[in-house]
Amino acid sequence: MDSKSCSNDVDVETKEMDTRSLPASRRGLMHLHKVGTPPKQNLLREFTARVNETFFADDPLRPFKDQPRSRKLVLGIQAIFPIFEWGRSYNWKKFRGDLIAGLTIASLCIPQDIGYAKLANLDPQYGLYSSFVPPLIYAFMGSSRDIAIGPVAVVSLLLGSMLSKEIDPNLNKAEYRRLAFTATFFAGITQATLGFLRLGFLIDFLSHAAIIGFMAGAAITIALQQLKGLLGIKNFTKETDIISVMHSVWGNVHHGWNWQTILIGVSFLSFLLVAKYIVKDIEKGINPSSVYQIYFRGEYLLKGLKIGIVAGMIALTEAVAIGRTFASMKDYQIDGNKEMVALGAMNVVGSMTSCYVATGSFSRSAVNFMAGCETAVSNVIMSCVVFLTLEFITPLFKYTPNAILAAIIISAVAGLIDIPAAILVWKIDKFDFVACLGAFLGVVFKSVEIGLLIAVTISFAKILLQVTRPRTAILGKVPMTNVYRNILQYPEAAKVPGILIVRVDSAIYFSNSNYVKERILRWLMDEEERVKAACQPMIQFLIVEMSPVTDIDTSGIHALEELHRSLEKKNIQLILTNPGPVVMDKLEASRFANLIGEDKIFLTVADAVSSCSPKQADEV
Amino acid sequence: MDSKSCSNDVDVETKEMDTRSLPASRRGLMHLHKVGTPPKQNLLREFTARVNETFFADDPLRPFKDQPRSRKLVLGIQAIFPIFEWGRSYNWKKFRGDLIAGLTIASLCIPQDIGYAKLANLDPQYGLYSSFVPPLIYAFMGSSRDIAIGPVAVVSLLLGSMLSKEIDPNLNKAEYRRLAFTATFFAGITQATLGFLRLGFLIDFLSHAAIIGFMAGAAITIALQQLKGLLGIKNFTKETDIISVMHSVWGNVHHGWNWQTILIGVSFLSFLLVAKYIVKDIEKGINPSSVYQIYFRGEYLLKGLKIGIVAGMIALTEAVAIGRTFASMKDYQIDGNKEMVALGAMNVVGSMTSCYVATGSFSRSAVNFMAGCETAVSNVIMSCVVFLTLEFITPLFKYTPNAILAAIIISAVAGLIDIPAAILVWKIDKFDFVACLGAFLGVVFKSVEIGLLIAVTISFAKILLQVTRPRTAILGKVPMTNVYRNILQYPEAAKVPGILIVRVDSAIYFSNSNYVKERILRWLMDEEERVKAACQPMIQFLIVEMSPVTDIDTSGIHALEELHRSLEKKNIQLILTNPGPVVMDKLEASRFANLIGEDKIFLTVADAVSSCSPKQADEV
Repeated sequence: MDSKSCSNDVDVETKEMDTRSLPASRRGLMHLHKVGTPPKQNLLREFTARVNETFFADDPLRPFKDQPRSRKLVLGIQAIFPIFEWGRSYNWKKFRGDLIAGLTIASLCIPQDIGYAKLANLDPQYGLYSSFVPPLIYAFMGSSRDIAIGPVAVVSLLLGSMLSKEIDPNLNKAEYRRLAFTATFFAGITQATLGFLRLGFLIDFLSHAAIIGFMAGAAITIALQQLKGLLGIKNFTKETDIISVMHSVWGNVHHGWNWQTILIGVSFLSFLLVAKYIVKDIEKGINPSSVYQIYFRGEYLLKGLKIGIVAGMIALTEAVAIGRTFASMKDYQIDGNKEMVALGAMNVVGSMTSCYVATGSFSRSAVNFMAGCETAVSNVIMSCVVFLTLEFITPLFKYTPNAILAAIIISAVAGLIDIPAAILVWKIDKFDFVACLGAFLGVVFKSVEIGLLIAVTISFAKILLQVTRPRTAILGKVPMTNVYRNILQYPEAAKVPGILIVRVDSAIYFSNSNYVKERILRWLMDEEERVKAACQPMIQFLIVEMSPVTDIDTSGIHALEELHRSLEKKNIQLILTNPGPVVMDKLEASRFANLIGEDKIFLTVADAVSSCSPKQADEV
Repeated sequence: MDSKSCSNDVDVETKEMDTRSLPASRRGLMHLHKVGTPPKQNLLREFTARVNETFFADDPLRPFKDQPRSRKLVLGIQAIFPIFEWGRSYNWKKFRGDLIAGLTIASLCIPQDIGYAKLANLDPQYGLYSSFVPPLIYAFMGSSRDIAIGPVAVVSLLLGSMLSKEIDPNLNKAEYRRLAFTATFFAGITQATLGFLRLGFLIDFLSHAAIIGFMAGAAITIALQQLKGLLGIKNFTKETDIISVMHSVWGNVHHGWNWQTILIGVSFLSFLLVAKYIVKDIEKGINPSSVYQIYFRGEYLLKGLKIGIVAGMIALTEAVAIGRTFASMKDYQIDGNKEMVALGAMNVVGSMTSCYVATGSFSRSAVNFMAGCETAVSNVIMSCVVFLTLEFITPLFKYTPNAILAAIIISAVAGLIDIPAAILVWKIDKFDFVACLGAFLGVVFKSVEIGLLIAVTISFAKILLQVTRPRTAILGKVPMTNVYRNILQYPEAAKVPGILIVRVDSAIYFSNSNYVKERILRWLMDEEERVKAACQPMIQFLIVEMSPVTDIDTSGIHALEELHRSLEKKNIQLILTNPGPVVMDKLEASRFANLIGEDKIFLTVADAVSSCSPKQADEV
């Protein structure tokens, strides 16, 4: 037998050495700490805990605990309308900050709104309407102090591109607008529902990297659309992809091939010429009601619903990302789900008052932050300025040249192209970069929807890949310590002769159970070949380090059983170390712990290794 | 400061005690092993390794390594046609086993084929055709020794239900058949493509539990369909759900409410009566060619493709599950991807020779195994018997009563209802049981496709839930050891005063990065409240145990940065322990390691804890 040669080579801790002379059973009891099995939980309690962790991870009811009923009512009102919470400590100093910030963003927002409304193929006043009502609602219900509300470029572009696929905005202006309100209504419903059902985590499925790519692509697409205004082109394509747009631009240059000079010339010329094409009339007066314009039946109901869901999700993603960024800068918490309810309510009300989808605007929020805003009151100030504009001075905007609007929009969206962030993504994770690039190219070369689809698909593919092909590692003993680590990361870590230690780096589920089993057997085969070639002792023990295995399901247990059966045929003992509470529970429920023997489950790899070696010694 | 009280309470290892008097820097160097950073890998090599692990996890080219070219050719042929490998050691003893098994399954398969063809709304001979050609092809290309090939109940039912939604089998018999061949063709193409592209792991996404539920539901649906034959009902519903079927059955009982006696009476009576309704003519002669009947253009091409993909995947799932089960019983390996190529090839050939989708049949394979089959030759024997039947004795089957066919099918599918397995699933994993029950109820109350959809959806939801809401645990020191474990699993484990140790049990990705950050901060908040109430020393260190964190992406790094920023404001030091090679690499690439300080990353929790405590002592 090889076990003879084994016992001499095995690397045993000095601490364990002196226990060797004891009988195996007593020795086990002395220095090995038993793996804990958590107390059996009530099924209902277990289920409740899981649901709580999924939907109420932020423990929203914590402040309500142990409070008298009247206090609970106050807290409840404050939870829905945070203004009653922070409003109590509002003072003049804060108001000064908010006033300055509010006036600053108002000056930015008016030309932006006019431009964005054009991206959405709506008349300019609808952009202004959307900067009047929604910020007011948000000020009462929102929990972010820095976000500035209004229409945003990406959502306007997305909405414009999706709506005009259903109805031609030039031929059926009124119907197009009705569909826009319908989509806005359902965008609001989607947002509020997600928040109310505490499904806010769904937007986490759009990865950060994909958003970087998507935003950069959208920015370029929006900038390209401005070529129409900037160059004064009349027959412009309705598509948004770079090829169609460039075709439109080229098609308007009826000259030879020396396009550089032509482009520069045309740009300058058009810049001057185009100043003549001015924005058409902006209707005077504040938002008219649009309740009866929303389609609540007919074929456009479903179309509006579909567009609303997509636009609502994208708007959410942007608002939540902005809210989180500024909250972490000033170190306060925003409640994602509550925030969604606020954004949803504001869009539902907006859809009834002639607004289209509004959300947190990145450029506007950044300016708001820089100008020293203190609370959501800056939104109220902006809203008031927009109100005055609508009531009194809209006629002045008649004279805003298209070229200037285009320049303002381009400078606003330029901030969405974040090249350093893309470089960082490349450095950290290549797969993330593929998602980023895919979303970018999809938006630029095809359409906003395709870019979005690519981003979501790649994000999901990444999750699935992670789940199907978990990592495994061979562990060795780090010299001078009692710890066992990945030998690829710690080349100085030494394998223990006669024992193969494999760590599985993921929960074992149906999606990977078969792979995990086969991967472990392949590690074993490789090791047996190596050992044979090197004339070292044969493998007698396979230790599976289960620390990272946080859960296991029926398929996982089956895979372990099959592994055990295969090992038995080879006369190799299967040993598990450090299964977590859930895994231990399931190993017992399925009687697998009995099958391999309770004494084959150890607290640490070191314990397991030391239990192997003396046994070999005993057998000799 | 609280640090004073802290240093007295802190639980420090005796081993570390004596190093306290040394200056902090030297002490660190002495007993702390540095966390390894793996050598920077070439991007291409890293990518190749990842692709290999995903698609070539079983290392299919291993036997080809270091072989002369002629040997490689032989190995290549053997890889595609395993019969040339096992055929060389084939002998009379094996043939005897195969002969007996083959004759046994042949006697089972003929009535089964006739019944299953009816489930698929095809004439009986098409069932027989499908037990003639496909088993022959499989015998040459398949790697399982126990599987028996032919039409199966579930796939026949699925095919029948999906095809008849497109074309009415009673009105357009010929077109229906053509669509069936088209679907079979694409089912084969799907299977072969999945195998060839090594995407076999995709079928792992249907969880074991969902399959149990789906199969049981399908078995009940199939049994219900047999009521038509068993009770001799003529106007039977075309739907498969239990409500429609029961409606049909009830609708045929034109009597009062004492249905028990009526049912018993009608059953017996019809059993006798129905013996008159006999199977219609079975065409004599072997499979005619059907190459020109496949739709390669027109609207039915896409429909056939869609049905083919679904039927092909389900057929694969069944065959691979059966293959794996018997392979693990006899302890040999089957290559999933190669198996798919074999099944795909057999269905493509089948679709051109008037067969519909065939796959590994559970009931037939079990009988094959029991009867002592040795190799796939038993399939050849069965195929020969079917050939003889088709050529000479089909007229005899004219006299098979429908009621007997129904009884045979019911007894065959009864084996698909695996109640003990369902009970085990309930015991091990409640969520799995929901998937199982959902698939079951979906099939029984709605349709096969809905049941399938529910099974896949719940399986995916489970994966996503796992990825979005990973577990976290608070660690404490297990008495008398140097190890830190979940205090819920080991109630005797003690927290270290002034230090909070949190373990994150999953890779940190975009889908959970925000949750992980907020969960850690919530643990901290809870602990701070508890500590305050108990007048214990304040938390000064937050140790995040990263052993189970196998990977991190850009969003994950962001979350860590935000965590670090929040902690800095509270004067709490962030410490990481044991990040794996990939994580360490990314922490360095993103300069996060620099941000918190390289010396704040430790090999073990014990090292990290001991580094905290002397520092506190120094500060006093």
